[in-house]
Amino acid sequence: MSFNTFGRVFRFTSWGESHGPALGAVVDGCPPGIALSEADIQPFLDKRRPGTSKYTTQRQEPDQVRILSGVFEGRSTGTPISLMIENVDQRSKDYSEVAKAYRPGHADYSYDAKYGFRDYRGGGRSSARETAARVAAGAVARSVIPEVEILAYVVEIGGDRIDPANFEKAQIGKNPFWCPDEAAAGRWEKLVDAARLAGSSLGAVVECVATGVPAGWGAPLYAKLDSELASAMMGINAVKAVEIGAGFQAARLRGEENADPMRPGEEKWGSNAPQFLANNAGGIAGGISTGQPVVCRVAFKPTSSILTPVETINSAGEATEIITKGRHDPCVGIRGTPVVEAMMALVLADQKLLHRAQCG
Amino acid sequence: MSFNTFGRVFRFTSWGESHGPALGAVVDGCPPGIALSEADIQPFLDKRRPGTSKYTTQRQEPDQVRILSGVFEGRSTGTPISLMIENVDQRSKDYSEVAKAYRPGHADYSYDAKYGFRDYRGGGRSSARETAARVAAGAVARSVIPEVEILAYVVEIGGDRIDPANFEKAQIGKNPFWCPDEAAAGRWEKLVDAARLAGSSLGAVVECVATGVPAGWGAPLYAKLDSELASAMMGINAVKAVEIGAGFQAARLRGEENADPMRPGEEKWGSNAPQFLANNAGGIAGGISTGQPVVCRVAFKPTSSILTPVETINSAGEATEIITKGRHDPCVGIRGTPVVEAMMALVLADQKLLHRAQCG
Amino acid sequence: MSFNTFGRVFRFTSWGESHGPALGAVVDGCPPGIALSEADIQPFLDKRRPGTSKYTTQRQEPDQVRILSGVFEGRSTGTPISLMIENVDQRSKDYSEVAKAYRPGHADYSYDAKYGFRDYRGGGRSSARETAARVAAGAVARSVIPEVEILAYVVEIGGDRIDPANFEKAQIGKNPFWCPDEAAAGRWEKLVDAARLAGSSLGAVVECVATGVPAGWGAPLYAKLDSELASAMMGINAVKAVEIGAGFQAARLRGEENADPMRPGEEKWGSNAPQFLANNAGGIAGGISTGQPVVCRVAFKPTSSILTPVETINSAGEATEIITKGRHDPCVGIRGTPVVEAMMALVLADQKLLHRAQCG
Amino acid sequence: MSFNTFGRVFRFTSWGESHGPALGAVVDGCPPGIALSEADIQPFLDKRRPGTSKYTTQRQEPDQVRILSGVFEGRSTGTPISLMIENVDQRSKDYSEVAKAYRPGHADYSYDAKYGFRDYRGGGRSSARETAARVAAGAVARSVIPEVEILAYVVEIGGDRIDPANFEKAQIGKNPFWCPDEAAAGRWEKLVDAARLAGSSLGAVVECVATGVPAGWGAPLYAKLDSELASAMMGINAVKAVEIGAGFQAARLRGEENADPMRPGEEKWGSNAPQFLANNAGGIAGGISTGQPVVCRVAFKPTSSILTPVETINSAGEATEIITKGRHDPCVGIRGTPVVEAMMALVLADQKLLHRAQCG
Repeated sequence: MSFNTFGRVFRFTSWGESHGPALGAVVDGCPPGIALSEADIQPFLDKRRPGTSKYTTQRQEPDQVRILSGVFEGRSTGTPISLMIENVDQRSKDYSEVAKAYRPGHADYSYDAKYGFRDYRGGGRSSARETAARVAAGAVARSVIPEVEILAYVVEIGGDRIDPANFEKAQIGKNPFWCPDEAAAGRWEKLVDAARLAGSSLGAVVECVATGVPAGWGAPLYAKLDSELASAMMGINAVKAVEIGAGFQAARLRGEENADPMRPGEEKWGSNAPQFLANNAGGIAGGISTGQPVVCRVAFKPTSSILTPVETINSAGEATEIITKGRHDPCVGIRGTPVVEAMMALVLADQKLLHRAQCG
Repeated sequence: MSFNTFGRVFRFTSWGESHGPALGAVVDGCPPGIALSEADIQPFLDKRRPGTSKYTTQRQEPDQVRILSGVFEGRSTGTPISLMIENVDQRSKDYSEVAKAYRPGHADYSYDAKYGFRDYRGGGRSSARETAARVAAGAVARSVIPEVEILAYVVEIGGDRIDPANFEKAQIGKNPFWCPDEAAAGRWEKLVDAARLAGSSLGAVVECVATGVPAGWGAPLYAKLDSELASAMMGINAVKAVEIGAGFQAARLRGEENADPMRPGEEKWGSNAPQFLANNAGGIAGGISTGQPVVCRVAFKPTSSILTPVETINSAGEATEIITKGRHDPCVGIRGTPVVEAMMALVLADQKLLHRAQCG
Repeated sequence: MSFNTFGRVFRFTSWGESHGPALGAVVDGCPPGIALSEADIQPFLDKRRPGTSKYTTQRQEPDQVRILSGVFEGRSTGTPISLMIENVDQRSKDYSEVAKAYRPGHADYSYDAKYGFRDYRGGGRSSARETAARVAAGAVARSVIPEVEILAYVVEIGGDRIDPANFEKAQIGKNPFWCPDEAAAGRWEKLVDAARLAGSSLGAVVECVATGVPAGWGAPLYAKLDSELASAMMGINAVKAVEIGAGFQAARLRGEENADPMRPGEEKWGSNAPQFLANNAGGIAGGISTGQPVVCRVAFKPTSSILTPVETINSAGEATEIITKGRHDPCVGIRGTPVVEAMMALVLADQKLLHRAQCG
Repeated sequence: MSFNTFGRVFRFTSWGESHGPALGAVVDGCPPGIALSEADIQPFLDKRRPGTSKYTTQRQEPDQVRILSGVFEGRSTGTPISLMIENVDQRSKDYSEVAKAYRPGHADYSYDAKYGFRDYRGGGRSSARETAARVAAGAVARSVIPEVEILAYVVEIGGDRIDPANFEKAQIGKNPFWCPDEAAAGRWEKLVDAARLAGSSLGAVVECVATGVPAGWGAPLYAKLDSELASAMMGINAVKAVEIGAGFQAARLRGEENADPMRPGEEKWGSNAPQFLANNAGGIAGGISTGQPVVCRVAFKPTSSILTPVETINSAGEATEIITKGRHDPCVGIRGTPVVEAMMALVLADQKLLHRAQCG
């Protein structure tokens, strides 16, 4: 079944294809009275916008968002907020090849298997272009959780990790990789450019940290904060893995190493909040936030659109080879970074409202 | 908000606490006419049952399931199936310590932060005892997808991995670890026993493979098969990470390495199904199954209940230390294995029905 | 599809058949810290209990409710509250006739058409016995909305209406019909008894008023307070119509007659609340409560189980006649009255929590 | 909470205000491969379009629908179908009066009570202009259920009923009232015109019949076909009551009068379908369709916007009077008729897909 709505009380429904006239999101359940204009959303879309460096696709999309409903005199009214972004750089290229042959790693075959046919132009609905709608909706979500700061950054490209000792928050916006480690950013320039020139692609790992989340958001058992985050992140195009806190590394620790000891909170921690001596839990225990930073890591596979020929079949089931020309990101994880932030914001806004529904 | 229902059309709602009189699940949306009795469910509960070896908790629970509704003359009627399991081995132990001090790694503090108080007896609702309800519901789910075979096994304990070359399916039920590698199982006996004797605990990684899933199950975009699986697995107690297919390793591959080339299907693959030369995708592309085996890996943290004293605070906010006595699993990942299988079955049954809702 | 869960954030899932071992409801999303015990629920079940007068079925069911989870030391914990009621008076009667022939007005044929077979014992899942679960869940809902008083009563049986001039709240519990008009109650004794003795049955109209609902509960557009109520009431067994406020009569008024004029609130109305000069709207405008009493009326058809022979077919499609022996209510609307109250409470509790989710 | 999505697997989300730039609906879960273009939707919008006679509002809106996604080469792809309708005749009138004073019968006061402020231009989100989105979505729904014919018509205006003996289906489109009784249509011309000229308004009752619904759609217990219809109809602007089949009249029948006797089906009824001798049930038993026509009746209150002055208060709580100038329907039930059809189609399409989800 097609299911294009995310969230429980703060929800958004996205629509649109890569090469259709437009795409958008309808955000529903937003609290009333929140200051909101297109200028609050646009900066986040600009961070995700294609064509800003040679390390991303060269498709030129201004990604200008329009608010069509739900805002009156500069404030949310509590009714659905319809956000629309026009597609302007759909190329009139010939899709006859991709229409027939299945690109390995893409959704071409699985869509055909499910629906019997597909909109093959630029990947149609399965294109990562849909993530623009998430980023727009995520900007609205941020305005619902002003107490929370969300920051995502790339910690690994093509297997080359940052050195945590070099972490500098101020670096993140200064290079085209959302990289907090200046030295790593320098190495990645060569790495990504070489992959691009070779018609290949690279994977990436993105980390996202939300600070300011109060203790108590989340739920036992099937709307756990961590399971909601896992769903949100795994649903992003090209994502293949999600970790919370220590993640896979937690499976290699002993119980006493993995425990996050607690101490009475100092003044600086707020009157009731304890001080934690570690954060292997990633800010979540039993599905509910602890007041520590919420931390997750997300693995993006390398872009499936590459110039290297790959064995495949066509829609008649015959053997062929395919190379995917076009305008592609050599490393989708880079532009995935603002999408990860958006999904974090969308989950947290929903959980904030759910928490006050039950607990007042 | 408390949210104890999982699934979209094939759904279950679980209830019960560790030390209450009983726990259960209500399975709703099950197709009618399916042969079902308690004998179909019990074997799966027996796999998860505590007290079967020294490597698991010594709590003695027969975990006998009763079907209270929804089955008539041995077949499902299409109405809700109420499953109940009585708790029989609640100890009359003194909970005064755990009632007041927060056990690090447990949900004690976060529950108090959310709800203002908690049922502290054995962890209450946050106890992994709840997973018995999932396993019972999962057994019903399996009967909805007879075309699918689901197999989970432990691939790593305390950082010690199996050797894939030693993989023997027949081994899995022969040792107390659901381990497919006889040599590894031998090493783990010592490893887990040593942790147990030291009052410590170990983490584990569980892999789960579903074969026989036809191409076409799943959905763009927010009920993707992989995002549903991520949510299902991350929602299991003690799980901190989920991978699909190559997972984090995919982020370290180049595009041409990560692609799963396709060839025309041979007779043995079915008339329409292509032959894939690799399965880095884990059987899912664009959120929809490809017909390959669906593969995921799940990281369990080490049990938080350990005998080593850990710094913590009590409910008055004062510093203290806690050691968690009682009957605990030295490695929760072991008994988590049948739970992983159950969640895989529950997701797939739901997706099967959702697929035929939309696509007939 | 079977769908046995009602509500959005305050939800309950019911299960059980007329002649199974038990029935129940799992209430999820209940706020924590609410005083709750079986003694808070039992009085509402007692109001609906069968066998209390000759005007109801003679089936003897104590309808004792047990709380199996979600309550600790006398207060709700915020986790699911499992409520169970055992069936004790299932007769070992021969169902062979009803197993084969379809009782007109009952769900026998439609269940068979949908599911291929059915639990025919006492109507199985389609029996009004399920409404005991609603009443139990409704009692929990009431505890969530202590600011609201809910009162339902019968205003018409077999076409004989009460005289509004005779309305006396204190009468409602004093006769076996939940009738606020002493004179009407007297007439109904003869009316219902005559129908019972004739092996016939009568319909009824139940009115329900909720006072104390603050302005602002409800929602545009598809969770409107009135559409939620309509769904809740129409879902009760034997209900065929629902009105809000003036209902059908509103369609016969002119605009100026139907308007509910407003005046500044007096002290007695609360500082901000306006005074309304009429309540044709039934306390709801644009799907949102106005602060006036919420009023609905519900039509119950006559019991379909009658001793008069009716033409029908058997499961082989052959012509036959059926008379429905057994223990039946001559007028289901009477015992439907506490069910109407329960559904009102369940809708309002959900809407209260939804309102604070969005609006704080 | 704002909740602007309707449906379970076939769903739509609507957005837009009366005087915003546009309004629309996103239809999700539509089966793939269905022939669909704007030309399939426009005729239904034209039936609801304002300004077509003196008996409706004089606002001029072409109500041209655009399909922005989800359709490729003339067929639905299975992904969300975004439908947009531009508003073109928003008047630059001065709203200062309605901004401050609450119009009785409108949602002005309840919106303010809920959200703290409102978009007062033309009623904002609470305007019946939103129903254009429902009609557009309903046209998509019709294409999902080609086996069903849906017909709604007005049976009563201002208390003046049609004579069932005069019922002529061919009349329905021939007069401006969707009236199947030529004589009644003649009377209504004078009735409605007189109300219009007097600055008053009238209510109406609309009947809707769906033929061709197979037995088996619907569900016990909280997604019953009748409870879904009740919710759908009561959610339409100005609706105050919903009946299924005999409705309130059923409460006045005796059991033997209300029963719908069954006979073996003749050839003309289909091989398995029984012949029913009456349809008091309105085609639904136990929440599940019986194969008979599904019948409901819906009461529309008189338009609340009238020229007669009504006592009210302003947003400061002070007494005032209001007359609602502007372009209004003297009887909203007339243009509500295609909306009733749309909601019937939306419910049935959803139930068809839900049925095959569970029952194959």
